[in-house]
Amino acid sequence: MKVGVVGASGYTGEVLVQLLLKHPAVDLAVVTSRAQAGKPLSAVIPALRGVDRGLRFVDSDAAALAASDCALFFLALPHGAAADYARAFVAAGKRVIDLSADFRVADLATYTRYYGAHHAPELLPQARYVLPEIAGERWRSEARLVAAPGCYPTSILVPLVPLLRAGLVSREHIVANSFSGVSGAGKKAAEMYLYVERAESAKAYGLTAHRHLAEIEEQLTLAAKAGGGGEPVVLQFNPHLAPMRRGIATTITVPAAAGATLSALRTAWEAAYGAAPFVQILAEGETPDTAHVVGTNRIDISATYDPRTRNFVLTSAEDNLMKGAGGQAVQIMNLWCGFAEAAGLT
Amino acid sequence: MKVGVVGASGYTGEVLVQLLLKHPAVDLAVVTSRAQAGKPLSAVIPALRGVDRGLRFVDSDAAALAASDCALFFLALPHGAAADYARAFVAAGKRVIDLSADFRVADLATYTRYYGAHHAPELLPQARYVLPEIAGERWRSEARLVAAPGCYPTSILVPLVPLLRAGLVSREHIVANSFSGVSGAGKKAAEMYLYVERAESAKAYGLTAHRHLAEIEEQLTLAAKAGGGGEPVVLQFNPHLAPMRRGIATTITVPAAAGATLSALRTAWEAAYGAAPFVQILAEGETPDTAHVVGTNRIDISATYDPRTRNFVLTSAEDNLMKGAGGQAVQIMNLWCGFAEAAGLT
Amino acid sequence: MKVGVVGASGYTGEVLVQLLLKHPAVDLAVVTSRAQAGKPLSAVIPALRGVDRGLRFVDSDAAALAASDCALFFLALPHGAAADYARAFVAAGKRVIDLSADFRVADLATYTRYYGAHHAPELLPQARYVLPEIAGERWRSEARLVAAPGCYPTSILVPLVPLLRAGLVSREHIVANSFSGVSGAGKKAAEMYLYVERAESAKAYGLTAHRHLAEIEEQLTLAAKAGGGGEPVVLQFNPHLAPMRRGIATTITVPAAAGATLSALRTAWEAAYGAAPFVQILAEGETPDTAHVVGTNRIDISATYDPRTRNFVLTSAEDNLMKGAGGQAVQIMNLWCGFAEAAGLT
Amino acid sequence: MKVGVVGASGYTGEVLVQLLLKHPAVDLAVVTSRAQAGKPLSAVIPALRGVDRGLRFVDSDAAALAASDCALFFLALPHGAAADYARAFVAAGKRVIDLSADFRVADLATYTRYYGAHHAPELLPQARYVLPEIAGERWRSEARLVAAPGCYPTSILVPLVPLLRAGLVSREHIVANSFSGVSGAGKKAAEMYLYVERAESAKAYGLTAHRHLAEIEEQLTLAAKAGGGGEPVVLQFNPHLAPMRRGIATTITVPAAAGATLSALRTAWEAAYGAAPFVQILAEGETPDTAHVVGTNRIDISATYDPRTRNFVLTSAEDNLMKGAGGQAVQIMNLWCGFAEAAGLT
Repeated sequence: MKVGVVGASGYTGEVLVQLLLKHPAVDLAVVTSRAQAGKPLSAVIPALRGVDRGLRFVDSDAAALAASDCALFFLALPHGAAADYARAFVAAGKRVIDLSADFRVADLATYTRYYGAHHAPELLPQARYVLPEIAGERWRSEARLVAAPGCYPTSILVPLVPLLRAGLVSREHIVANSFSGVSGAGKKAAEMYLYVERAESAKAYGLTAHRHLAEIEEQLTLAAKAGGGGEPVVLQFNPHLAPMRRGIATTITVPAAAGATLSALRTAWEAAYGAAPFVQILAEGETPDTAHVVGTNRIDISATYDPRTRNFVLTSAEDNLMKGAGGQAVQIMNLWCGFAEAAGLT
Repeated sequence: MKVGVVGASGYTGEVLVQLLLKHPAVDLAVVTSRAQAGKPLSAVIPALRGVDRGLRFVDSDAAALAASDCALFFLALPHGAAADYARAFVAAGKRVIDLSADFRVADLATYTRYYGAHHAPELLPQARYVLPEIAGERWRSEARLVAAPGCYPTSILVPLVPLLRAGLVSREHIVANSFSGVSGAGKKAAEMYLYVERAESAKAYGLTAHRHLAEIEEQLTLAAKAGGGGEPVVLQFNPHLAPMRRGIATTITVPAAAGATLSALRTAWEAAYGAAPFVQILAEGETPDTAHVVGTNRIDISATYDPRTRNFVLTSAEDNLMKGAGGQAVQIMNLWCGFAEAAGLT
Repeated sequence: MKVGVVGASGYTGEVLVQLLLKHPAVDLAVVTSRAQAGKPLSAVIPALRGVDRGLRFVDSDAAALAASDCALFFLALPHGAAADYARAFVAAGKRVIDLSADFRVADLATYTRYYGAHHAPELLPQARYVLPEIAGERWRSEARLVAAPGCYPTSILVPLVPLLRAGLVSREHIVANSFSGVSGAGKKAAEMYLYVERAESAKAYGLTAHRHLAEIEEQLTLAAKAGGGGEPVVLQFNPHLAPMRRGIATTITVPAAAGATLSALRTAWEAAYGAAPFVQILAEGETPDTAHVVGTNRIDISATYDPRTRNFVLTSAEDNLMKGAGGQAVQIMNLWCGFAEAAGLT
Repeated sequence: MKVGVVGASGYTGEVLVQLLLKHPAVDLAVVTSRAQAGKPLSAVIPALRGVDRGLRFVDSDAAALAASDCALFFLALPHGAAADYARAFVAAGKRVIDLSADFRVADLATYTRYYGAHHAPELLPQARYVLPEIAGERWRSEARLVAAPGCYPTSILVPLVPLLRAGLVSREHIVANSFSGVSGAGKKAAEMYLYVERAESAKAYGLTAHRHLAEIEEQLTLAAKAGGGGEPVVLQFNPHLAPMRRGIATTITVPAAAGATLSALRTAWEAAYGAAPFVQILAEGETPDTAHVVGTNRIDISATYDPRTRNFVLTSAEDNLMKGAGGQAVQIMNLWCGFAEAAGLT
C-alpha cells in the first residue's frame, strides 16, 4: 500500500518517515516539504544515510498528491495548514491521518477558543479522534479522516479514561503535571530552545491555558459521561520543559471515588489494556521512566493510592515523538488498514 | 568567628565548604570526614584547587571538636548520625546548624513514623526549624541548635506558607509536584544514579510517603493554624528525578479560598518576601527556571490563577544544594550571628 | 538458527539481546547472567517490556550450553572470563563470537603486556579478528572463534586501514583522539561514572597506554605491511570521556605520504567501502556527528587535507554499543552464517 | 574605578557583567547593547535577579561613552564591530580590553587572510595580545588597547608556550584537539545549536582553517623564536562541539625534543606557572576535567610522556567563558590597573 507524508521536515515528520521506510506492509512513495524540496531524505534526516532508498523531498501540491496512487496520507504540518490537503484527500477518497490539532476537537466553539478560526469545519463530522487503546473500533469504518492525539493528551488520557468510565475517580480536583523533552517544541530556531538555554534547566510553561486542554477535557468529559457523570470535566494541566531531547513523564493526582480501591483500579486497567501491545501496566511499587520507552511506541503506566489524602497518583511515560505522535500515527494506520497492530513498530 | 563542618564529603558538604572558604566574616577552621581524613580539601573537591588554603580533612571526633575554639558547627552527616555531635556541641555551648532531618520535626511520633527511632530527643526543645523567610526572629535567641530545612520542603513552604497564614488557599487538595537534579540523591555509587541511567530520563519516585512530608506537613499545619484553621494539613507530594545535576522545580496546585484573588496572593507574597534578598517574586506571566537560580541562594516564585478550576498554580525554582541546603545554612548562620544576611552568598 | 548470549547484563549485552530478539533469521534461545539469573529479560532491560517473549536469564553453565542445540554463542563477559566458554563451545563445534578482548590480539606477548596472562592461548590459532569491512572473506571458513573488535579500535581502523594498505599515509606521527559516551565504561556502580560527576564534563583518560592499543597497532602494522612497510606502526591514542551516553567521535591526524592527494584518499575509501552497507563516506566539507549514528550500526567517515601541515585529518562517528560492539557482532554473525549482511540491523 | 561593557548581551558579555558587578575595586557604570537597550540587566540575565543594582542596558554610542568618566572599557562585540569604539576610546585616553579577535594578530596579512579587511589597522602598534601568564609585564606600560585571547588559543598556548621557549618540544607535528561546550558558538538562534541537535552529540567542525589558528600560530612562532627556532610554527588544530554548555578540554600531542624529559617539562611549567594563581599543574597521572574548572578562572594542565612514540601528551581544561573570555579579561584589568590579580575572580 502506497502512502505519503506531507510536511516531513520537523522532528515528528522525521520519526514518521523513518518508521514508514521500515514498515513491512507499506511503500513510502512521497514525502513533501516546501523548505527541503529536492533534497534527498538523508540530507535532512542524517540518521537515514544509506537507507533512504534515494527518496527526495518534493514540493507540496495537494491536487497532484490527491491524484496520485497513494492510498493514505499522513499530515505532519503546523496547526492550521492541513485544511487544503485534508479536503483534497478526503474528496479523492484517500485515507488521511492528521498529526496536527486541527481535527482533534469535535466542538467547534472549543476549538476556536484555543486555536482560532477553523479552516475546514465541514470535515469535522467525518473526522475521528483516535487514541487506539480507548477509541473502540467503530472509527475504522466511520472515519474518513483520523486525528492523531497530541503528545501530552496521550500521556493523560491513557491512565485516566478507563478510570472515569468505571466511575473509580472523581471528576474534580484532577491535577496533571507533565515534563517533556525539548523536541516537543519543534525544530524552530528560537533562542529559548538553544542547547545552552535548555540544558540543566527545568521550567513550567503554558500554565492554565495550554491548547491541549481542548482535546483532553473533551475526551475526559466523554469518558465521565460513560461512567455516569454529566458535568464537563476540567483539570489542572501543568506542562514543563525538561533537559532531555525526548520523552514525557506525566503524574496525575486525582481523588479516588468513594469506595474505589487500588485493586479495582488495576482491574479496570487490566480490562482496558491487558491485551494492548503498547500499554504496559507496571507492577506495584514501580514507576515509569522515560528512558525506558524512548524509541519505542510504548506507554508505561503505574498507580498508587495514598490513604492520607485519598488520592490516586497515576504516572505515565512515553516518547513524545513515538506514542505521542509518529508511532501512534503508524499504529492508527495499522488498525485502519488491517495490518498487524504492531507492524513496523517493534 | 571560627566555624567547622562535620561530614563534608558529600555534595551538600562540598558546597558548604566552598561557601565558608569565601565568607568574609568566618574562618573555616576544621572540616571533618572519616572517609577522606588526611587529604587536602582540593583533592576531594577539585573545584577548590589553588584556593583551599592548604586545609585538610580530619577525622571526626565530637569531644575534640567540642573543646576547640570553633563557635559554630555545621553538621552535614547522613540522617541519624548527627546525634552525638549535636549533644557534645550544645553541651559545650557551641552553636549548631544541622543539615540533616534529625531535628526538623518537632513531633516525635511523626519523626519516628518516617525516620525511625530518634537518637537525641532530649535536644528537640532546644532545636528550631529555620526557613529564614518564614521563621520570624525569635529563634535567634531561643535556639541552641537550628535544623536547616530540606530541599524539597523549602521549594514548597516558601510559596505556600504566607498564603495559608493569610487564609488565601484551601487546606485540602494541595498537590505539589517537584522535579529535582540528581545531586539530591547524594554521592553514593549506586547503579540507578549512573550517568547512563539518569541522562535523558525523567521518573517519579518516592510517591505518597517521601520522608520530607514530615516537616512539610508540620510546617503547613502551623501556617494554617495561624490562618485560622485547626485541622492538620496533608498534601500530595510527587517528587521526580530530572536529567540535570542541580536544581528543583516545584509546581503546586491548590484551590483558592473563597474570594481569594491573584492580586491578594501577590500582596501576601510581597508582604512576606518583598524585603527578602533571596526570594524573587516574578512578574505575572513569568515562570521560574532552575538554570537561572543554580549557583545562587535564590528561590524564584510565581503564581497564576485558573478561573476554570479555581486553583492557584504556584511555581518555584531553587538550587537544591544552595537554597535547598548549603546556601540556606550559611544564610541561617548570618542571621544567627549578626552578619549581613547575604554575607558570602552573592 | 538458535543462538545464545553469555553474560548479557551489561550495556553491550543488553544491546545485543535487543538486536537478536528482532533478528529475522535467528531464535535467541538462551541468555545467561549469573547476577540476574531467574529474572525476566524485561526486568533487567526495561526497554524490552512487552517484547521479551517471556525469556528469562539463566545461570551460566559452559558444559550445558555447549551441549544445547544453539549453533552460535555470543560471549559478552568481562575480559578474561570468556576462556572456559570459548573452549567448551569450540570443542563442541559451536560458533563463537567474543566481544571481549581475549582473542583480538594474535601476538601473545603483546596481549600479555596489556591484559596479563592469557587464559586460553591454545585457541588463538583458530581465532580471527573480524572488522567485517577490512577482514576480507577467508575468515568465514577458517575461523572457529571470532573476536569482535573494540569500540575505539573500530573507529580508528575503518578510516586508516585502507589508506595504509594503499600507501597513502605515513606510518609515523599518527595521532588519534577519541571522545566516547559514558556507556563505554560499563554498568559498574563507581563514583566517577555517576550522573553528577559526568554531566557537563569532558576529560582525557587512559593516555599513552590504553589497552586498545594492542589490537589497534597490530592491525595497523598488518595494513602497513600490505602497503609495503615493514616497521611496526605505533600511534598516539588519546581517549576522552564525553557527557553523553553513547557514541564515539574519533579524529585522526596523519601526515600524507609523498604525493598523496585527498582525491586519491577518497578513491581508496570508495574502493574499500563503496559497497559496504554500514560505512558512509561523507561528502567533502561534512563531518560526522555521533547523534546521527547512535542507534544504528553505521560508521560515518570524512577526510580533509591541510596543505599547511600536509596532514590528512580523518574523522569518524559510531555508536560504541552498536558498530563498536553489539551491532558489529550481529553483522559478523550475518556474514559468517550466510544471512544478508544487514539482517536485523536496519 | 568606573568601567563599562560595550555589547553585553551574548554569553561572554553576560559573564563579564556578572563578574564586574561583584568586583571589589570597580564600579560597573555602563552596559551597552543595541538589541536590549532600556531593559534592566536582570531582564536579560536572569541570574542577576535581585543583584543587578537596577542597572539597565543603554544603546551604544562611541562618542558619548568616550566622553564619560569610565576609565576602562571592555568590548564584547562581534568580530569587526569593535573598530569605532576602539578608536574613540584610545583617542580619549581610555583603557580598552577587547574580547574580539580584531586586535589579537599583529601581522596584518595573516589577520586579513582569516578575518577579512581590518577595520582599524592604525591601532595595531598600540595593541598588545595579553595571555597574562605568558605575556610578561611590559604590556602594562606599553599597551593602550589589550586584546584578550580566544578561548581555544588560551587552552593551547598555556601548555605549549613555556615548552617551546625552553626548547623542550618539536616545532613540527603538533596536533591540538579541542572539545568545547556549545556556549562557545554564541547566543544566536540557529538550528544547529538547538538543544535537540546538540544533546548527545559530538562532532568535529572548522577543521584545518579555524580562525583561531591566526593567533595560535603567531604566538607559538614567537615562543619558538625565543627557544631558538626561526621557522614559523604551524599546527593541526581540530575543534569539536561537545554536548555540554561550558568548558574546553584540549589535548595536545607534540614530539619531545631530543633529550627532553617529562621531569624537565614539569620544571619548565613550574618555572612559568608555579606562582600563577589561575594555572594549576596537576600531579602526574591526573588529567583535567572541565567540570572542575567551569565557573572558575582556572586552567588545569597535565602532561605525560609516551616512550613508544616519544611524544608528550599535554591536556588542559578551562571554562571557555571564564579563562577563555570574561574571566581572563577581568584578570587582565586587574594586572593593568594595579589591583590584586585575583580580585573579583575567587
